[in-house]
Amino acid sequence: MVRVLGIDPGLTRCGVGVVEGVPGRLGKLIAYHVVRSEPDEDISQRLLNLDRSLAELVALHQPESVAVERVFSQHNARTVMGTAQASGVAILAGARAGLPVQTYTPSEVKAAVTGSGAADKKQVTAMVTRLLRLDAPPKPADAADAIAIAICHIWRGGTRAKLEAAVRRGYR
Amino acid sequence: MVRVLGIDPGLTRCGVGVVEGVPGRLGKLIAYHVVRSEPDEDISQRLLNLDRSLAELVALHQPESVAVERVFSQHNARTVMGTAQASGVAILAGARAGLPVQTYTPSEVKAAVTGSGAADKKQVTAMVTRLLRLDAPPKPADAADAIAIAICHIWRGGTRAKLEAAVRRGYR
Repeated sequence: MVRVLGIDPGLTRCGVGVVEGVPGRLGKLIAYHVVRSEPDEDISQRLLNLDRSLAELVALHQPESVAVERVFSQHNARTVMGTAQASGVAILAGARAGLPVQTYTPSEVKAAVTGSGAADKKQVTAMVTRLLRLDAPPKPADAADAIAIAICHIWRGGTRAKLEAAVRRGYR
Repeated sequence: MVRVLGIDPGLTRCGVGVVEGVPGRLGKLIAYHVVRSEPDEDISQRLLNLDRSLAELVALHQPESVAVERVFSQHNARTVMGTAQASGVAILAGARAGLPVQTYTPSEVKAAVTGSGAADKKQVTAMVTRLLRLDAPPKPADAADAIAIAICHIWRGGTRAKLEAAVRRGYR
């Protein structure tokens, strides 16, 4: 059983989802949260607010590892720099808490929860709802994405652990 | 007299320059430094290393404000995301120390020290050397850029202060 804090980085809305589980089984949703800041606020205050909120959430939920979605430059050019700055602060939040931090591409996350790297937001939200046996989809969508990142990390971590175990058993 | 810590953000090399001065006069170089990390290191360790180094430099040099160069997406696409993440951590370092943080575009910085927003690195280094009456140009170039950002902030801050003073004297 592992507890993972997933982060979908953003300046205006940063999704955070905490999931507990083991690879290949349905997981358990512990909590989710969206850290918000206003676009007309000073960039340094927005990043400081994000840093403090993430530090609080890590301290509150005590995850064993942190998973962050990777940012690509083909995203909306007007907001991509802010998203990348937020992702730097998100990765730092995990590192400062002494936790291992892993990053995943959006298609790795989609493929992990829906089976397709090209899935849309609706599919991701539907699968997150099913995989965690929730009564209703998590809202807003930023939270569903963060939860999906945490699920992706649990499942992928399992693959890695199995491979390593296989290597230890002698398949070198 | 104001003391400014300028940051030229980067993951592999992050330039830091501390300058003391007043607008429109030659300034005084207090210190400069380049924070380095290896490209094959884990991203979370690289950002943690940068965060710690910047916190130490801020504590050591006690600047009154921090100036950071803005990152644009037209930069080298392979490294721009890392640079943007580093800039998020740089801005955060100032904010966490309770200091005002200002960002400047590369052309604002070049124009402030050379008179031209299209100046090349050599010109910037030459002018930084002259404006601070240094015996030799600061090396490496990342440090010269960070020093130029600090000079830019001192001079621009002066313009702003004069405008505000003029407004207070009744030019509304």
